[in-house]
Parts: sequence; C-alpha cells; structure tokens
Amino acid sequence: MHDWTGYRIDQLAARFGLEARGDATHVIRGVAPLAQAAGTDLAFLANPRYTGDLTRTRAGVVVLRAEHAAASPVPVLVAPDPYLAYARIAALFDTAPAAAPGIHATAVIADGARIDATASIGPGCTVDGTAVIAAAAVLDAHCVIGPHCTVGAHARLGANVTLVTRVVLGQRVLIHPGAVLGADGFGLARDQAGWVKVPQLGGVRIGNDCEIGANTTIDRGALEDTVLEDDVRLDNQIQIAHNVHIGAHSALAGCAAVAGSARIGCNCLIGGGAGVLGHLEVADGVTITAMSLVTHSIHQPGVYSSGAPLEDNRAWRRNAARMRHLDQMAQRIAALEKQLAALAKDRT
Amino acid sequence: MHDWTGYRIDQLAARFGLEARGDATHVIRGVAPLAQAAGTDLAFLANPRYTGDLTRTRAGVVVLRAEHAAASPVPVLVAPDPYLAYARIAALFDTAPAAAPGIHATAVIADGARIDATASIGPGCTVDGTAVIAAAAVLDAHCVIGPHCTVGAHARLGANVTLVTRVVLGQRVLIHPGAVLGADGFGLARDQAGWVKVPQLGGVRIGNDCEIGANTTIDRGALEDTVLEDDVRLDNQIQIAHNVHIGAHSALAGCAAVAGSARIGCNCLIGGGAGVLGHLEVADGVTITAMSLVTHSIHQPGVYSSGAPLEDNRAWRRNAARMRHLDQMAQRIAALEKQLAALAKDRT
Amino acid sequence: MHDWTGYRIDQLAARFGLEARGDATHVIRGVAPLAQAAGTDLAFLANPRYTGDLTRTRAGVVVLRAEHAAASPVPVLVAPDPYLAYARIAALFDTAPAAAPGIHATAVIADGARIDATASIGPGCTVDGTAVIAAAAVLDAHCVIGPHCTVGAHARLGANVTLVTRVVLGQRVLIHPGAVLGADGFGLARDQAGWVKVPQLGGVRIGNDCEIGANTTIDRGALEDTVLEDDVRLDNQIQIAHNVHIGAHSALAGCAAVAGSARIGCNCLIGGGAGVLGHLEVADGVTITAMSLVTHSIHQPGVYSSGAPLEDNRAWRRNAARMRHLDQMAQRIAALEKQLAALAKDRT
Repeated sequence: MHDWTGYRIDQLAARFGLEARGDATHVIRGVAPLAQAAGTDLAFLANPRYTGDLTRTRAGVVVLRAEHAAASPVPVLVAPDPYLAYARIAALFDTAPAAAPGIHATAVIADGARIDATASIGPGCTVDGTAVIAAAAVLDAHCVIGPHCTVGAHARLGANVTLVTRVVLGQRVLIHPGAVLGADGFGLARDQAGWVKVPQLGGVRIGNDCEIGANTTIDRGALEDTVLEDDVRLDNQIQIAHNVHIGAHSALAGCAAVAGSARIGCNCLIGGGAGVLGHLEVADGVTITAMSLVTHSIHQPGVYSSGAPLEDNRAWRRNAARMRHLDQMAQRIAALEKQLAALAKDRT
Repeated sequence: MHDWTGYRIDQLAARFGLEARGDATHVIRGVAPLAQAAGTDLAFLANPRYTGDLTRTRAGVVVLRAEHAAASPVPVLVAPDPYLAYARIAALFDTAPAAAPGIHATAVIADGARIDATASIGPGCTVDGTAVIAAAAVLDAHCVIGPHCTVGAHARLGANVTLVTRVVLGQRVLIHPGAVLGADGFGLARDQAGWVKVPQLGGVRIGNDCEIGANTTIDRGALEDTVLEDDVRLDNQIQIAHNVHIGAHSALAGCAAVAGSARIGCNCLIGGGAGVLGHLEVADGVTITAMSLVTHSIHQPGVYSSGAPLEDNRAWRRNAARMRHLDQMAQRIAALEKQLAALAKDRT
Repeated sequence: MHDWTGYRIDQLAARFGLEARGDATHVIRGVAPLAQAAGTDLAFLANPRYTGDLTRTRAGVVVLRAEHAAASPVPVLVAPDPYLAYARIAALFDTAPAAAPGIHATAVIADGARIDATASIGPGCTVDGTAVIAAAAVLDAHCVIGPHCTVGAHARLGANVTLVTRVVLGQRVLIHPGAVLGADGFGLARDQAGWVKVPQLGGVRIGNDCEIGANTTIDRGALEDTVLEDDVRLDNQIQIAHNVHIGAHSALAGCAAVAGSARIGCNCLIGGGAGVLGHLEVADGVTITAMSLVTHSIHQPGVYSSGAPLEDNRAWRRNAARMRHLDQMAQRIAALEKQLAALAKDRT
C-alpha cells in the first residue's frame, strides 16, 4: 500500500529462511491484504477463511503454507507459520520515523535526573530528579516520569504516558498513549467514620520486551511490587491491580482486568473483558475466553470459560427467568427419578 | 437553571415547528428538569415515569406529547418526540464559549503542518509536520497530533486527545478528553522464543459528525484502516480494535468493546460493557443489551442478549452450581421421558 | 523495606491505642509483608490464609488479632482490626514528598483564576479564568482545569487529570492520573437524518475525601449534576455516566460502570467490572459481586450476583448449549410431573 525501497522475492526468501515458488526476481515494495494487494505488494494467507481472496489476488507474492501454494495465481513464499513470517517481513516496511536524540526545549527535567545522551525526550515531558532514562529510550509528548522510575534502554513511551512512582521498565518496553503505571493500588480499611486509605508503598516492575496498550493502568504494589515478567503483552484499557504478578509471554486482550495479588502464570492468554478475582493463582498455559470471570484458582493448563450464550432477546428472557429456578428444577428432577423408581419397582 | 438571553414561547414554537398551548408570550431563559424548573425555564416530559413531576412543575413551558398536554399546569409545546425537540431547543442555551482562533504560544507546531487560520490550537498541543488541521477546528490543551493525521473542519478535540498515526477525522467530529486514536492494534505472532510484534501499518478513518467519548481508544488497522462511518456515537472508555468497521448512525454505550476485524452494521445500538468478538459481522439495525457478548455473526435485525439474571447471592450460588450440571440435567430429563413412556406403554 | 526515622513499639502502641506484647522497646523503621519483613519492619496479619507466614516471620513486630498472638515468634501489637491499624501506622512511613507551593513557570493560568498561594500547580497545567484552586491543593503535571471548576482544599490531582466543565471537588479529594471529570454525558435524540446531540449542561460534584482512580471517567449531568457524596472511593477505569448519584462511603472496584441517572446508596460495595443500568435505585448497604449486572432496582441491603460459573471450556460448551433450552427443560419437567401424577393416581 506504500512505496518504499524494494526487496526481491528471492532476497526475502533468503533473509527469512522461506522457500520461494514462481518468479522470484520480482521486486516487493510494500505489504497489503490479499484482496487489495497490487503487484509490488507482499500479502499473506494465514486464516483459511480468506482462501477465496487468494485465488483472486493480484499481489506480487503471497506468504502461505505449502498446502495453499498450488491455489495461488502469483508467486509464493512457503512458510510453516505464514503469520509469523509475515510479521517479520512487514517490519521491513514499517515507516515509523526514528525519534531524534535529545531533550525538547519544552520538557521539564528536574536536577538529578539521569538521561542518556541517546534518549529522546519529547515536548512537554516532565522527568523527576530521581528518574533514570536509559540509552535510545524514546518519550513522546507530555510523558510524566515520577520519583524513582527507570525507563530501560530502547523503551518507547507514547504521548501522555504517566509513570507515577517506583516504576521500573525493562529494555525495549513499548507503552502506548495514555497508559498509567504506578498509581496507588485500591487499598482501603474501614473504621466507624468511613474509609481509611492504606498507604501504597510498592512499585511496578515491567520486564524486557513487554507491550502495554493505550489507556491501560497498572497500579503500584501495596508493599511489594506489581510485576510483569518478560514479554508480557497487554492490549488497551486493561486494569492490573496492586501486587499482581504476570508470568512471561502471557497476553491479555482489551479491557481484561486482574484484581489485587492475583498471580497469573507464563504463556497464558486472557480474552477481552475477562476478569480474574484477587489472590487467585492461574497456572502456566491457561487460556481464558472473552468476558469470562475467574472465580477460583486454576491449577491445570487448558481453556476455561464462563457466561451464557447470546440469544434473541425474547428467547433469552424466557430462559434467563428459568435460571432463577435451576436449583429447584434439579430437585424436581431428583424427585421425579425417585418416584419413577418407586413406581417401576412397585410394578415388578 | 442559568440566565441567558430569552426566547418567547411562540418564537420557540415557530423556530422548531411545534404547537404552543397556553400563554405563549412568556419568555424562556434556560432549561431545567421538570421538578426543579422555575418560571423562566423550559422543561420536557419524554419518559412517562416522570409524569408525576409534570403535575407539580413550575416550569415556564413544558415540551411534551399531545397526550400529556392536559395534565400540565403550565403552558406547553406539543411535539411528537419531546426529547428530540428538547435537544434542539436546549442547544440555544448551551453556554460553552467559542474558542478563539489561533495557535497558543506554548503549542509546538512542526514545520510543514498545515493549520487553517480559523483553527484554534490550545496550550501545549503538539502537531506533526505532516498533519492538517482544517477550518474552525478546535484543539483543547495538550492534544497530540501525529504523522499523517487530519482534523476535519469544525472538529473539536478535548484536552489530552492523542491522534497517533494516520488518523483522519471528518467534519464536526467531537472527541472528549483522553481519547487515543491510531495507536497500534494488538497484533502478535508467536515463535519459539516468544511474541513477535506484527507491524501495524493502517490508519483510522472517522466519518463526519461522529462523537467519541472520554478515554475511548480506537486502534489503527494492521494494513487497512479502522473505520467509523458518519454519525457513529461512542461513549466513554470504549475499545475499538484494529480493522473494525462500524456503520453509520450506530451508537455504543460506555465500556463496550469490539475485537479486531469485526464489522458492525448501520443503526446498531450496543449496550454498555457489551463485547463483540473478532471477525464477526453484525447486521444493520441490531441492538445488543448491556454486558452481552456477541460470539457469532448476527444476520437479522433485532434485540440480542446474553448473561444470567441478578439474584440474591445465596440463591445465585445454589443456581449457579446447577449450571455446571445443566447438560446432565437435560440427559436426566430425556431418560425420565423415555422411562415414563415405557411405563405408560407397558400399562396399556 | 525502606529506612526511615524509627518508632519504638511501645510508642506505636500508645499512639494507635493498641496492646503491645513481647519486647516493646524495639525500634521499627518501616513496613513490609510478613514473609519478607526484617527486624526493623512492622508487618500485619489480617487474612488467615497468611497464618503460615506468621510462624516463620522475622518482622520486628506484627499487628494481629488477639487469637493469633500466641503463634507469633516476635513481638506483637494486638488490634481488633489489624488491617485498619496497619493502614494508620503505615501512613507514618509513606515517603511521598510534599509538593512545593507555587505555580510552575510552564503552567498557563488564565486571568481571573483564583489560586490560593499555598496551592501547588505543576508543569504544563492550564487553569481557566473562572476556576478556583483552594488552599494546599496540589496539581501534578499537565492537569487541565476548565470553566467553572473548583478544586477543594488539600485536594491532590495526579498528572493529566482533566476537569472539563462545572466540576466541583470537595476537600482532600484524591484523583489519580488520566481521570476525566465533567466531559459531556452520552445524550442523544434521534431524527430521520441521524443522531441529535442533547446538550449537556450540568456539572459534577465530588464530596470531601473521595478518591478517584486512574483513567476513570465521570460525566457531567445533562441538566442537574452528577454527584458523589463524601468518602466515595472509585478504583481505576470506572465509568460514571451523567446524573448518577452515589451515596457516602460507597466503594467501586476497577472497571465498574454505572449508567445514566442511576442512584446508588451509601455504604455500597460494587465489584470489579460490575454494571448498573440506568435510572435504577440501589439501596444503602448493597454489595454487588464482580462482573454482575444490576438490571432492576434493589431495595434491600445484601449481597447480589449474576453470571455463570467458570468451567473447563468443553464442559462449558455442553452446558451453555443447554441454557438455550432452559425454558423447554422446565416445561418438560412440568409435563413429567403431570404424567407421573396421573400414572400414580391411576395406579391407586
């Protein structure tokens, strides 16, 4: 869809370890969807539901699994995981301009802040005197870096990201605009007069290569830190409460929420809008489907769900009304079984 | 509730095509709820649950349907849709001051940015050199307008709105504070070592007259654009994932979320906290009730719901425990039916 | 976990009205969890699930209930509510530095704004000419204070907080970064051509001692105000729609949402991700569990829930499919009961 410096198909094959079939001397200058791609574009087929688009594609080359190669009207690059291969190739065509090192004139940097000379600090950013910004880190406009925060090397923060207090980011962390890390956890005790705030004194530790979505919030721990291990991926508008611990390579989709002190394993997938109650443990390799609520610890890998199916509203009303009598229905079934058994016995 | 320049009731009737009954020479200077309105206020009755307030109102005039006119102790303006008529009249009394054209001294405008002379750019805004700000557009404080973004004529952006990359806004678009448009979609491929980010290269296109709520997020497409057609209305804290397409005049209530590549028709109403899974299609004219999850495509207009009804927690616990045995219960009912049929047959 | 000025155990006992047991001359310099605490730390035991940590603790002193005192290997402070006692003691060790009074050079203050000399206005803040900032209020970087807004004495606003229009904050209100108060409510009327915006003319009133989480949104009322009474506590990413009224001492956990004109009583607890539909009333003392949806008014205090339990996905699919036939199942049970009664009667 754009026009960049090009790569020949055989160059792409060699660079990414893929098998080229068809005329491999053609030059690729961009990436595009199968249905829209022009002759200088690379496209991919991963989801079989788009196989129809393949037969009609005008792409310059298509990345696909061997089983789909014969159906392609254009040259192909065969890959065991076309989406993964595409992800790597597409990075060549990502035009995001590199940020210039240096501190913008409108940024407000407190005395004592340690900012690497290769870091880029955007307009209006404020950096506390106890903060550290490592090499090649990039802060877009209006980021606020509070006390005892560290931004790791090559980390990138979108506009309006706030690191409140005691937030430590690993290397190559990517945070999208509006995210807030290190705000107070929601800790309250109760006396006769009302709520008493429980001081939140811990921090947030984010491992290397984590990605954090727009307007997502990650609270500081009450005493210990809230922790994301390496390569955790959070989508937009996620809420991570104080003292949560998320294992490496777990990914959470938009609007998911994890309550205080819950511990989620490695390689978990949490669906959009799903919730995990506080103080629970979720084992490695667990998948939670969208909008499910985890109400007890999960000790075995697998896929877990809750919720009722979508229905036409009239049918739903009839069925939902019966949910209120489910226990009674079960008792009535048991009574029927007992009576029927008595009848049957009686008859013999 | 406030004091502005006034309008005579007969002037309002003529201007908005309504029928006045009672003394129509009275002057109206503001709008207020039925129960609080004073003699210079206009009030309205749309929801019959507030009919009691009508009989006791001290408003200067009430906008209502003909069927309620006789019950009013004060002059009325008869309208087939009183809420709609009220909406139009109340706009006369909206006191939001017009923003002064020009660029605030603290804004940071990159060379090359095209900003219309009638636009208003607030304190601390940053505008990329490839961005366009059209006539009479208003940016409140600290907005960030990134590469290849366009703000249409008469669009208004609240404070701290971020347009990240390739975001094109139509005319008269209204965006409330903290919204983030054009951040990367959540695209991940997996290799042995962990997640590989899929470059997000598309944009966001917002049609004319759309409204976007506070802290709502709309991601840029992976390759193609994420699209809101004209007159789409999004409440606060909504999440729209990459490549979503929403048809004209659809409205989504607070905290709704739409997953990647879902396609929602025109004139749909999506309730608060509802979710739509990725790659689904929702037909025109579909209503989804609050906190429902759309798990399959919907091809017919109508009202759809999921979820279980609210109950006292003790009753809920008993009933919810039975949900885990619903399939077994159904099988037990089938077995009972079979046994009973055999018994009955046997007896004859 | 940190090193501050210390307090002797007997000093803490006297100051907070607690009973000390064991060597009370020891000096405490910080707070830490039972399992990590060192000899100069105070720890607490509130949740019995951590009793195992008590027997192995190396804390300098533990705050606990009398029943657990004998199990402690170290000195204790006996409290009827250890979490409440801990909350008060821990405040002694909260190191958040006090903000310096004054207006940062980069703040943009409009003529007419009334800002107390003891208030602290951070970098990049903008304050409208009709706004009032009271004594000892603190605004962190980039806060935006719009028309007719008042920030009460000793209130603290985190970075990037926006008060849009007609927002009045009581004393000691604490707002975390990214929250937006006073944006337009979601009011729409419909005509043939599309949506007509209903002007939002009311404000937001926040009582004393309220706390509002990061990226939470509270809309202004349509005509009257949206109201939080004193000591209401909102976690992160909560959505409060126009004209909502929340009674004193109620607390809402992360991602909860309350639709327009709903009225929530005093001392309510709303769980994470829970929703309340519009125009409903919820009595004082009601608890709603996480991710429940309140679909009707609640007139009695108590605990209320909705939702289906989490299951292994395969079992869930089988059971969820039956939910669509629940009404039919109930009818089949009734038919069985009738047939069986006829059979039994027949037999006698």
